[in-house]
Parts: sequence; structure tokens; C-alpha cells
Amino acid sequence: MKKQVNIAVLGLGVVANGLVKNLIAAEEKIKQQTDLSLSIAKVLVRSKEKKQGLAQKYQLTLTTEVEDILVDPTIDIVVELIGGIHPAKEWITLALQRKKHVVTANKDLIARFGNELTATAKANNVSLLYEASVAGGIPILHNLNTSFMADEITAIQGILNGTSNFILTQMNEAGLTYEEALESAQVSGFAESDPTNDVDGWDAAYKLIILVRLALNQDLVLDDLSVKGIGEMTQVDHFYAHDFGYQIKLLAYAREVDEGTYAAVEPVLVPQTHPFAFVKNEMNGVFIESKMIGNSLLYGPGAGASPTAESVLTDILTIAKNLNNKQQALQMSPSNLPRCKLHKEGLMNYYFLITDCAIDLTTFLEKQHIRPISLKQQENSEAAFISNKLTVQQKHDLINKLQEISHVKQILSVWED
Amino acid sequence: MKKQVNIAVLGLGVVANGLVKNLIAAEEKIKQQTDLSLSIAKVLVRSKEKKQGLAQKYQLTLTTEVEDILVDPTIDIVVELIGGIHPAKEWITLALQRKKHVVTANKDLIARFGNELTATAKANNVSLLYEASVAGGIPILHNLNTSFMADEITAIQGILNGTSNFILTQMNEAGLTYEEALESAQVSGFAESDPTNDVDGWDAAYKLIILVRLALNQDLVLDDLSVKGIGEMTQVDHFYAHDFGYQIKLLAYAREVDEGTYAAVEPVLVPQTHPFAFVKNEMNGVFIESKMIGNSLLYGPGAGASPTAESVLTDILTIAKNLNNKQQALQMSPSNLPRCKLHKEGLMNYYFLITDCAIDLTTFLEKQHIRPISLKQQENSEAAFISNKLTVQQKHDLINKLQEISHVKQILSVWED
Repeated sequence: MKKQVNIAVLGLGVVANGLVKNLIAAEEKIKQQTDLSLSIAKVLVRSKEKKQGLAQKYQLTLTTEVEDILVDPTIDIVVELIGGIHPAKEWITLALQRKKHVVTANKDLIARFGNELTATAKANNVSLLYEASVAGGIPILHNLNTSFMADEITAIQGILNGTSNFILTQMNEAGLTYEEALESAQVSGFAESDPTNDVDGWDAAYKLIILVRLALNQDLVLDDLSVKGIGEMTQVDHFYAHDFGYQIKLLAYAREVDEGTYAAVEPVLVPQTHPFAFVKNEMNGVFIESKMIGNSLLYGPGAGASPTAESVLTDILTIAKNLNNKQQALQMSPSNLPRCKLHKEGLMNYYFLITDCAIDLTTFLEKQHIRPISLKQQENSEAAFISNKLTVQQKHDLINKLQEISHVKQILSVWED
Repeated sequence: MKKQVNIAVLGLGVVANGLVKNLIAAEEKIKQQTDLSLSIAKVLVRSKEKKQGLAQKYQLTLTTEVEDILVDPTIDIVVELIGGIHPAKEWITLALQRKKHVVTANKDLIARFGNELTATAKANNVSLLYEASVAGGIPILHNLNTSFMADEITAIQGILNGTSNFILTQMNEAGLTYEEALESAQVSGFAESDPTNDVDGWDAAYKLIILVRLALNQDLVLDDLSVKGIGEMTQVDHFYAHDFGYQIKLLAYAREVDEGTYAAVEPVLVPQTHPFAFVKNEMNGVFIESKMIGNSLLYGPGAGASPTAESVLTDILTIAKNLNNKQQALQMSPSNLPRCKLHKEGLMNYYFLITDCAIDLTTFLEKQHIRPISLKQQENSEAAFISNKLTVQQKHDLINKLQEISHVKQILSVWED
């Protein structure tokens, strides 16, 4: 006898659509391999008329009243796919309080209110899972909680924003300007009409906050975090990065150091030989350094209806199996983590792009005791170089000196293998 | 009150050593995050004297009699780390029959007798897990069973043998001959003194058999599988591969096609832009194509005491948590899978290396209606080219024609992006 698990979905947008399709496609496999029979009992929509076609096609019961779902005792799992903070937060809270398990893909909400919602879930002995909130189809949160359970993660680094990565890849490989690459991303469906959240780094920052909770067991607060987007990147930067053997990637990263944690979201030069160099276009990648396993990478689609829906479906199945076994409710992270103590980076290589430099840069840098790893000075008084490892103070001193002889256009961190 | 879980380890070699160390390092974390207290109760060794130092250092109770472990009712989990088929198979069977859960890293054994052992485990309602048997520190088996549970995998491809990958990487990047690269691998500890099993492809073949069970739900039989090692690769091949924009990698792969499955272990030319090109030296990578998620890659260390031990420890923890919750026993794959129906590959690009070719190859190929993607003919009558896509029949016809005008030295499959 199969255990019937009833699901209600809040929203019927792109991901919810994908969820309905993927669940139907997997129905037989799930029945064969588990004791479960999953079905979507109700879907909350704004307008029944607008979604009538989909409802008929997939035999969905639509409702415009969230209470229809929240008071229905037959609903086991509520899947929140409306996005945004309000009313998602209130509805999830009500669902948890009414002993319903919740799955969400809402990264903004989990990054900002994940602790509060997890505490509510725990208090009501129900599960709150959100695998799809970070890196779409990559099961990164689940892996952090299982395969790294007995390990100690020292650093986590991610290409977490598909829009930015698409733009940077197109600038690098197709020689497009930032504006052309953004337009191409919009045409291909990889960028919103208002891409601010993505290209300014906020989307990656929210995801990093969630990753840091699970990987480093710390609560990273957005206000503490340095966030820089890709808006200032030019073809000139890509030209020199490429010439020096690097690629520019928007990275979100956190690294444990002696005095605390160094974390940021910023465009970084990574070596052409680093695994991140092949994470192209809309794909995402998460690189983990840990004491026992060493270096690992998970790579996959960071967005898209089907991959994101599949992560939601895996969360649903995890809860359903757990439910069937009458287990303790599952949470992805504790709700009472210590606040992440952020510190300035230590020694780091930097990329500098300067213009209006009339003097010989090599001689100048030698006088400043800087030994560049790479340097290129053009006849038009433009120059770029990668410094040796500098402290923050040394970097600031160098910037001041460079400003006396040139116009400093760009400074980026550089990662070595 | 912590649930006490008692572990017995068969063998005290490199991985067992790593397990003891990793478990001690993780003891506090495990106690904090779970209701479990794990301890290694007994270790089976051949000679107590030889391991006395380790036993004292880690306070291990040694025994030379496997019965000491098998009849001990306090032992919950037996970890088999002696390797080989006999007596590992008999001891695991006895342990399962005596209702002990088993964790093993023994790929040869699981590839050959996994179905039988899984059936025994099921019949006795105990778990049999073997994450460490494939790709050391990469949690690939666990991911196939969880994140892809509701998905449908269509192809799985892996760089699964660290020794071969180390040798190929060194030949490609450092310009070493096969013999020099093998010696370098041996000096670095990445190759055994007798590397046959690794460089001839058998190790990768065993791992592929295990992967295919979990990914494609089919039983791949070793005798059906085409297995080719890296022994015939020369610097000349690496030179042309590199020149044409490829790298030579030893791949183990299985792909569902209309008529069945195409699977093999062989050296393949992969594009420099393929994620596999970044899987270097002793690292492993597994690339998965699936209907819902699309393309994913898991990358990490394929061997090494600590990563392999960590996979064993994760299996132990999975069983211990399950044990604590009085769950149904866990198996990684069903024991009654249908036999994999292997078919010849379909259309494929091929790399040819020929010598003693006195005529113009371009004109010759044109006459054979072959349109090469890349071609290089040297003055010394050596030539290499990559064909357009050919059927198996077309490939054989071409080989026959080439043999009339030259000496065919090498033919390898070529993958396109």
C-alpha cells in the first residue's frame, strides 16, 4: 500500500510549471522505487482564468485563497514558489505553524529570514528544505549536509549567478561589450529585463549567505559583506586578463583564516587552468576545500525551470520518505549559528589597469619594490599588470603612488592555482 | 543519551589508517550534530606485532581472528578494507548473515559480486554501502541515489582512474614519454609498482560497472565491455591531439541509445574546452547527462587515504543514523537488474595517426568522401587527422583504404562539445 503524500504549490510560474511536468514524468519511477504516491492537490494562483489551460492540461485544482491550502488537513507539504519576501514569509510561517512541511526555492527569503523560519519549523516539528535556492540544479546544500558531515570545510567558492557568468563569458569569448553581452543574455533568457540584482552581485551574495551557514556553520550578515558586481568590467580588462592567462569571473567566496573569515562577492581573475575557467555561460560551479577530502567541485545548471524544479522535487521526496518513516523533521542548518567574523583579506595578488601613464612602469614599480608577475605597457600610455602578493596596506600605498603618475581604472583580486 | 555504535575494521592498511584518523578528528563534530557515539571496537590484522605501534597510538583492540568480530554481538558495522575477492567475499557474506551492516571500498568485489552481496544484505535486513569503491572522495554513488532519484540519466562518463590520468596529464603537459610519466606516477605515489590493473583500464571498468547499476539501472557484464588502456599512447598522439585542440583522457562511459547502451573504457580525445580537460593528474571527474537537470559534473580526489576514508566514514554515519532511527536497511542498488544490452557506437569522429604515407592525404581522403575536421601531414610522411562523423562500417572501410597507402598507427574516438 503506497503512502499518499499531498502537495500544495504556491504559485504557478516557470519553476512551478517545471515541477508539475517533472513530477508527472517521474511518477512511475517514484512508485517503483519507493512506497510513495505523490500528488499535487492544490495550486495557489492569482487568477484562475489565466491558468485555466495549464490546470486542465495537468488536472490541477486551482485556488486563489491561500487559506484553502493552509487549513486543509490533507496537505502534507507546501511548496512556496511565489518568490519575494512578502507574503511568502508570512505564508511559510503559517504553513509551518499548521504542521505542514515546507519546500522553497526563495533565496532572498532564506538568506534574510532562514534562521527565523528554521526555528519556527523546528518548534513545530516539521521540515523546511530549500535546495533550489542555491545553484539551481546542483545539489550543493544536500552534499554539504551529508558528504561533508564528518569533514571540516575551510573554504567555499562559487560561480553562483548565471546571468553574470553568461555576460562575462560572452565578453571573454565573443568579444562583446558589456552592453552587447547583457542584451544577448536577455535575448537568450538568461537575464531579466531589470538585471540589477544579478549583475550587481546581490543574488550571489544571498546564495553565499546560505552556503556559509551550511559549510562554515556561521551566520554571514549581508551588511558585513563586501559586494561588487560586474558593471565596471570592460573588454580592455578581459583582453589583459586573457593575455596574462586568466579569466574574469564573478565569485562569491568565504575562507576561514586564523583571525576569522574572509568573504566577498567580486569579479576575480582566475587562472585559465582553474576548474572555474570552464564554468561557462549560464552554468554554476561550487568549489569546496576541506580537511579530509581536499578539493571538490560540483558543476551544473544554476537556473532554468527543469533543473530548479528537480531540486524542489528532490526536497519533496526527501521529506516524503522521512514522513513515511515517521522521522524527526529535517532542517538544512541550525537556527542559532554564531555571527561570521569578517576580516580583511591577507596577502593577495592584484590586477591593475592604468591609463595616462607617461613614465616607464617597470622602473616605477621596481622603485616601489613591486615585482609584477605580468606586465604590459602600451604605446598609448595604457598599462596593466599583476602585482606580487601584497597586504591591504601595501595595496593602498601602491594605489596612491600609481595615482601620482597615472589614472587608476581598475583593481581586481587575482587567484593563483 | 548517545546511541553507541560499534565498528569493526577488517584490515589496517592505508585507508583503514585514514579512517581511524578521520574518525578521531570528527568525533566531537559527530557528537555535537547527531545522537551518535561511534567507536572502533576491533581491528582485524594479520600480525598484532606489526601493528602494535598504531594500536597503542589510537587505542585500538587488535585481533587476528575474523571470528572474534563475526560472533561478537556488540559489533554493529563491519568495514571491509582488506581488498581482493577472497576472503573478503566470504567474510562480508558471513557478517551480513550475522545481521551486521557492512561498508566496503572494494570495487573489484562489488563489480563482480555486488548483486549477490546486496541480495544477502537484503535477505538479512542489513545495509551494504560502498561509496568509496568508485572515485574515492567524490560522493557519486550517494548523489546518483538521491539527487537523481526522480530524474532519468541518459549518459554517465568518468575519469575514474587516477594513475592513468596522472600519466596522461604528465605526457600532455610536461612532455614526458609514457615510461617517464609512469615512473613519475610511481615516485609520487600515484601508481603501484605493478600498474597493470590501472593503465590497462580494468580498474576503470570495475568502477563503470558499479556506476551503470546506479545510473542506468542495468547490469553491465565485464565480458561484454570493450576495455582499452593507455599503454599504446605516445607523445606523438599527444602532440597532434593538442595541436587539433584536444586532450587524450582515459574515459569510462555508458550512454543510452535507441537500441540499447553504448559503453566502453578507452582513451578518447576530448576538446580542450570540455570540463574533463580540467580534470588533471590524480583527480577524478564524473559527468552526468540527465533529462531534468541536464549536464552535471562532480570533481574531486579519486584516491588517497584521507578522501577514501572520508567516503567510508560517510557510509558508516549514514548507516548509524539509519540504525538509530530503526529504518529499513539501505542498499545502493537493486540486486536483480536487467543485463545491459551493449551496442556498437553510432556516428563518431575518429582520430587517425598514420606513417609511411607518400601521397597527398587531403586528395586521398577527398576521394574516399572523408571531410577531415583537422589534418596535418608532415614531410617525414607522418600524418594525423580527425575524420568527420563515421559509422562503424565507414571507419573499417577507411582503415582498409589507409592501410593500402600507409601504416595505421593509432585510431581513437573523438568527442565533440
